[in-house]
Amino acid sequence: MLQTELLKQKTNEAEAVIEQYLPAESGHQKIIFEAMNYSVRAGGKRLRPILMRETYQLFGGKGQEIEPFMAAIEMIHTSSLIHDDLPCMDNDELRRGVPTTWVKYGYDMAVLAGDALLIYAVETAVKALSFTGTAQEGARVARAIGLLAAKTGIYGMVGGQVVDVQLTGQDIPAQKLDFIYRLKTGALLEASMMIGAMLAGASDEELGQVEEMAGAVGLAFQIQDDILDVTSTAEQLGKPTLSDEKNHKTTYVTLEGIEKARADVAKISERAIEILHGLPGKNQFLEDLIRMLITRDR
Amino acid sequence: MLQTELLKQKTNEAEAVIEQYLPAESGHQKIIFEAMNYSVRAGGKRLRPILMRETYQLFGGKGQEIEPFMAAIEMIHTSSLIHDDLPCMDNDELRRGVPTTWVKYGYDMAVLAGDALLIYAVETAVKALSFTGTAQEGARVARAIGLLAAKTGIYGMVGGQVVDVQLTGQDIPAQKLDFIYRLKTGALLEASMMIGAMLAGASDEELGQVEEMAGAVGLAFQIQDDILDVTSTAEQLGKPTLSDEKNHKTTYVTLEGIEKARADVAKISERAIEILHGLPGKNQFLEDLIRMLITRDR
Repeated sequence: MLQTELLKQKTNEAEAVIEQYLPAESGHQKIIFEAMNYSVRAGGKRLRPILMRETYQLFGGKGQEIEPFMAAIEMIHTSSLIHDDLPCMDNDELRRGVPTTWVKYGYDMAVLAGDALLIYAVETAVKALSFTGTAQEGARVARAIGLLAAKTGIYGMVGGQVVDVQLTGQDIPAQKLDFIYRLKTGALLEASMMIGAMLAGASDEELGQVEEMAGAVGLAFQIQDDILDVTSTAEQLGKPTLSDEKNHKTTYVTLEGIEKARADVAKISERAIEILHGLPGKNQFLEDLIRMLITRDR
Repeated sequence: MLQTELLKQKTNEAEAVIEQYLPAESGHQKIIFEAMNYSVRAGGKRLRPILMRETYQLFGGKGQEIEPFMAAIEMIHTSSLIHDDLPCMDNDELRRGVPTTWVKYGYDMAVLAGDALLIYAVETAVKALSFTGTAQEGARVARAIGLLAAKTGIYGMVGGQVVDVQLTGQDIPAQKLDFIYRLKTGALLEASMMIGAMLAGASDEELGQVEEMAGAVGLAFQIQDDILDVTSTAEQLGKPTLSDEKNHKTTYVTLEGIEKARADVAKISERAIEILHGLPGKNQFLEDLIRMLITRDR
């Protein structure tokens, strides 16, 4: 089982890396730096940068060029949360107990802060070039940026968000729900683990395996989320339960029933662990973390 | 003098390049592809991609790796227009005579279309890797993406937009107006010309000269815009004149007076041409284009 202390330590380490790449809060445009940093610092478990670094180490990576990418993936994740919370999207005023970016800095600055973090993520990732010695490593950074952008964009996270927004309030067919889950949640997890593997020099075949593993983790994670909304108490979850039912939201549970949902989480997560065991390296923490993400009760 | 026919031809050529990199309109997330393509196709003179390719050729560039970057810079420019037009920003319903993206596709999809184009620009630029032969050229693509992101982001275009939004309706001191002009308009022109030079193998010293030249072009262009708002007829300009005065907007003309504004445009543009003449290559069209941008009467 995953030790809570160890996860806490890894989260702290990831936060220390991210902090190094946040902009200094000075200059005429100071307000945007404040809005960006406020949003990134608002918290979370930093799962994406942690999964990135652990996968990097699984493939024997030992350099520092992973660090700008760790900060970049968290910036992109935060950018998407800022825009998701806008009045024209989910219209959320609180996230993790604090005012959302648009409530704190205004609607216009929240749009700009999301834009700013999205492109600053790329600017940050390029800083990996300063840790590379050879032109070959430099070209690898370019490929990793391509992967980051592809998994973030219209064939990744943004694409999933588009379909989710478009189907709000409607019954969603199973095929489209799968699409939304794979893209909206899954794509950035795939990017995290694939970039870790890529920068450590994994082969194309290995990258394909990591993609499948990360996709399975993302899908099982999301289905588990739907199960917990039905089975947990609000106290356990730290947020209201049965919210999907109240909002007449189509979920994996409403589509397939709770028994099949549970069986599928088990099946999909076993597949993820199976792929992990077939990869060359060994990383017990990564295995424990994947199990925790999938079997968590809150 | 610049021949209108030649400019039209260059615009057509740039549009043909951009068109190749637009997403196909199919799949679950089709609506976002339509919104992106609608916005990019809504027009404009394609000055940024034209300036990029002409500068590339000035430095002897002959490859195809410039083309994804030409499409990318236009996508970024379009992304900024989509978000500028949003109700929470300028609240514009028409641009170039057609409905703005949020009017046509909804507020939520316009936020997502702006995000989509911003990150798809990076995804597109990375495609330049397929035209590179050596790892060295691959690493150069990574550096060019870094430049693109830096000039787009918080120390570039977005940074200028932040200060512009923040000071809306207020008197703007000269120092901040200069900052807004240099970043909001200037930064993407600098990116265009510097990326052209960089991909053609310009030295760091030459890149610095190109940056100064492009910055001067951007600043003179923007001041000329302020002058035309006062001196042109609506018929000449194709849009309402004296709009700055009506909106109590601080401009270079309200700050410095029309005579000094005219003298400064002449001085700044002479400096741009002087730098151009000091560069190794020769490109008469580029020189004519710069003169046209600065001395235009509409």
